[in-house]
Formats: sequence, structure tokens, C-alpha cells
Amino acid sequence: MTQILDRIRNGVDSEQMYGTLDAIKADPSLGVFRFRARNQWVDGAHNRSTIKAFYGAGQEDSTRTHAFTLDAGEPAILLGTDTGPNPAETLLHALAACLTTSLVYVAAARKVRLTAVESTLEGDMDVRGALGLSDEVRNGFSNIRVSFKVSGDAPPEKLREVVERAQSRSAVFDMVANGVPVEVTCSS
Amino acid sequence: MTQILDRIRNGVDSEQMYGTLDAIKADPSLGVFRFRARNQWVDGAHNRSTIKAFYGAGQEDSTRTHAFTLDAGEPAILLGTDTGPNPAETLLHALAACLTTSLVYVAAARKVRLTAVESTLEGDMDVRGALGLSDEVRNGFSNIRVSFKVSGDAPPEKLREVVERAQSRSAVFDMVANGVPVEVTCSS
Repeated sequence: MTQILDRIRNGVDSEQMYGTLDAIKADPSLGVFRFRARNQWVDGAHNRSTIKAFYGAGQEDSTRTHAFTLDAGEPAILLGTDTGPNPAETLLHALAACLTTSLVYVAAARKVRLTAVESTLEGDMDVRGALGLSDEVRNGFSNIRVSFKVSGDAPPEKLREVVERAQSRSAVFDMVANGVPVEVTCSS
Repeated sequence: MTQILDRIRNGVDSEQMYGTLDAIKADPSLGVFRFRARNQWVDGAHNRSTIKAFYGAGQEDSTRTHAFTLDAGEPAILLGTDTGPNPAETLLHALAACLTTSLVYVAAARKVRLTAVESTLEGDMDVRGALGLSDEVRNGFSNIRVSFKVSGDAPPEKLREVVERAQSRSAVFDMVANGVPVEVTCSS
């Protein structure tokens, strides 16, 4: 029982974690992943993504038993009917989620037991950009602030280090902070 | 009846749209928005964001009647239990949703009636970056491909123009393609 408790830390199985890391170290081609989403317009600002298939560890995944669906919308002031969080809010969720999971994995690797992790995120946007009313403001957020509150069985400095390490390894933090080449094509 | 059908195009009320644009033109301070998300760790790779309050058009919003919740997870191969789409997949959804809504609004403004809009997105990631196994690959996607299929009552060139204009005005496209300054703070 103690052994199992030692192995599972923060809900992460450290034996499985080190097994995965060793396998990818031994064969770096296993690290190549391709993630996907399919989106369909419903009406107005309402559209919906379906997320299931991905490629990783040398093959198409066959473990996911069902697709996830995510709905998007806009509030009335932005001409929608609130059918879901808006795309910019959803980006904040993706960022929070990735930083949090990175943090939980880093803590597991460093033998820190977490008791609570919470974050609040806020992004500033002048919507004149996206609405086409001004070329002097950008379309997206000018700034994003992320504020973490982390509790666990380690001193505050160590918890802060875990957050810093998570930030330096988070996939979505990297993308949002540094940008990614995006190619858009269209057929009709 | 014909008048109403003319006014509502692609689910967007053009009268409301021009009213909003005119109001923000007249008072640019109404264009200042602040979007937010709160995230809470559940266990392992499972965490959940709550999205409700935002500031915009000169005040805190009071029109949203309920909060949206979004769950994140990871598939087994990435040490989770598939409690939701992973953060990188969620970012693809945010990108698809924003491009699609921009496209629908642009089409409404240009009097193009859309009949269908679908997109598929794919991002390439070498997970050795995020797993801390290599400093030579980045943590996030190296590339994202977005493929739109758009149908409506306009010639293919015009539909392509609408997609291009949407891309040049999408908030999330701007953020993902160009990056945003992100400030992360932590308390314990």
C-alpha cells in the first residue's frame, strides 16, 4: 500500500511516467505526435469542434473510446447567443490547463505532493482590431496575466520553482507566448 | 418577412452588427474588453476551467446567466485518463472557432449567405520538448495546418476572399500566429 502510494503522486503513476520517458529516450521517433480537431459551423457565432483521433508513439491512437465535443459562442454584446465560451476565453482555458498539467507532472517527478492548484487568467483585448475598426490595435489579447495559487508539502520556494519549470515546459504556454506558423487553406 | 431575412444573415443580425460597430466607432473606449478563466486542478492531468465574467463595452457583463465549464485531460500515452481533450487539442478548437466566427461575420457584412463551413486542423508536436527530454525541439506545435471547406451563394474566389479576410481579423489566429506577452505569477 505504501509502495502504491509512493508510486502514484498527484494522480500520476511515476513508474508509468519513467517508462514513457525511457521509451521515448530510446526511440525519439516515438515523441512525434499529431493532434487534430474538426470544426463545424452551426449558426451565427455557434460552432462545434469534435476531437478524437491523434497520432503518437508511432501509431494512430486506438485507446480513446469516444470523441470530445466543444461548443463555441459569443455573448450578445459580441453578436452571439452565448452558446459556449468565446474562442479567446477558450484559449485562456487551454493555457491554464497546460500550465496546470505541466505543474502537476513536474511536481510528481520532483516528489512534491500537491494539495491544491488554482489559477485565474485574464486577457486584455481591444475588440476594434478583430471587428476591423482599427489597424492600430492588434486583433488578439495585448497581454495575458496568469495567477497561480499552489499548495503542497514543499516550501514556497520549491512550489515557485515547480511553477517556473512548468512554464518552461508547457506546450500551450510556448505556443501562446512565442507563436506558431499557421497555414490556412480553403476549398469550396 | 423578407426584410427580417435580409437583416439576419448567417445567424448574424446585421442591424445589431452595424449598431455595435457604430457605437464603438463613436466611443473607442467601448472596445476595451477583458476576458477571464478560472482553473482548478482535479487530479493528475484532469483540471477544469470555469468561464463566466468578462468586462466589455464599459462595464462588467451582467447578461451571462450561467458559467461554462471546460474539462482538460490527457490520453493514457501522455499519462492521463482521457478526462477531456488535451490542452493542445483545445487550442486547435479555439483557433478553429475564432476563424469560423470571423468568417461568418465577414460573410454577413459582405452579404454572402453561407450554407456550410467546416474545418480540419492538425498540429505537429515532438513531445520530447514538453516532457523535458530535448532542448532542441520546442514544447508546442512546430506547425498548424487549417483546412476550410466553405459553401455559400458566392463564387469560389469570393468565398476564398472571405476566408482570407477572416484570417486577417481573427483574434485567436493573431495570438497563435504571433504570440502574446504572458505574465505568470504564483502564491502559495
